[in-house]
Amino acid sequence: MREEFQADLDEISRLLVTMAEAVRAAMRKATTALLTADLKAAEAVIERDVEVDAIYGQVETKVADTIARQAPVAGDLRMVITALHISADLERMGDLAEHVAKTAQRRHPSPAVPAELRPVFKEMSEVADQMADRIAKLLATPDAEKAAKLEHADDEMDNLERRLFQVLLDDDWPYGAETAIDGALLGRFYERYADHAVNVGEQLVYLITGEPVTGLS
Amino acid sequence: MREEFQADLDEISRLLVTMAEAVRAAMRKATTALLTADLKAAEAVIERDVEVDAIYGQVETKVADTIARQAPVAGDLRMVITALHISADLERMGDLAEHVAKTAQRRHPSPAVPAELRPVFKEMSEVADQMADRIAKLLATPDAEKAAKLEHADDEMDNLERRLFQVLLDDDWPYGAETAIDGALLGRFYERYADHAVNVGEQLVYLITGEPVTGLS
Repeated sequence: MREEFQADLDEISRLLVTMAEAVRAAMRKATTALLTADLKAAEAVIERDVEVDAIYGQVETKVADTIARQAPVAGDLRMVITALHISADLERMGDLAEHVAKTAQRRHPSPAVPAELRPVFKEMSEVADQMADRIAKLLATPDAEKAAKLEHADDEMDNLERRLFQVLLDDDWPYGAETAIDGALLGRFYERYADHAVNVGEQLVYLITGEPVTGLS
Repeated sequence: MREEFQADLDEISRLLVTMAEAVRAAMRKATTALLTADLKAAEAVIERDVEVDAIYGQVETKVADTIARQAPVAGDLRMVITALHISADLERMGDLAEHVAKTAQRRHPSPAVPAELRPVFKEMSEVADQMADRIAKLLATPDAEKAAKLEHADDEMDNLERRLFQVLLDDDWPYGAETAIDGALLGRFYERYADHAVNVGEQLVYLITGEPVTGLS
């Protein structure tokens, strides 16, 4: 029974790692689409979001199946329920990558982001990418200390968002309201992506230590 | 055992209704704060979001406790897991009301929304309010047909968001980038609030009929 349960957990864990890798790849590709006005990349991200959603469905099914067959209690039960939360966050990260890709698609063949905003979006995407990478590794090998460090990366993202807004709100902003709105929404997509990555980290800390992190804002 | 399980479900259900009523009240008050530059209303919404988060925690605890004690399977298990998803959506709706309130607070004593945008935000808030009201009633008395109708209200919200963007992107928009960005983000908060309400409806349909609604975008 115990071995079976462990095998179930391992499979859930593998699904979550696959999902994390998929949403990482999605945001990388969405950023390429955004910064180079690459329509094919944008369309690929939009098409492939169903794959992330499908893994999400598999996690749900596997969790329900595990609870029904193994009737886990206490820490074991906490573990499988936490997997549900994590998969919901990852699913949302996939959606946010899709939103970035859709913005690139909508503005094609024009670039959605004017040249002077590209550096800040490049940095935002790098932070997002590191966070998604860290999550994928942590899901494979949980480590409370490393999981807690996702907060620092998130602070970096918040700083980048502030920098973005300084440019958008500068009196000399020459691109009009539409580009400013796109910029603000795009900034929010990256920032939300990072927030969900932090949520995953908090769920992992909770899983390992049993101590809830006050993650709800 | 069966009676105990039913009592557990009833309690979970009551918690969800309380949560739905709280996030409905939060968005009403946040809208007042927004449209009348009412700082006290904004602060009240921001302060009270912890209450929504606390009920969310109670749902989680109650669900884990129910699974551990009753070891539900099949439809019973599905029911309690669905409650988790619903509470996560409601928690997020509370956050979105808080975001609206924070925008009002940040711009105080100026109004965050110029006079010509107030009608569209008023309509958006009315649609949001009707959706939250319907959710609270459906959580108390589930009804698949009525739950599915939340989609229509959401279409209305999407139309309103389009109308909002037409004003923001008009060549004659006189208020500059900052107010346009605030308007776009605020529109997104209402639209996301409605999306989460639709998710709750889809979860309820799934709960009642066992048929998943393709809710993942």
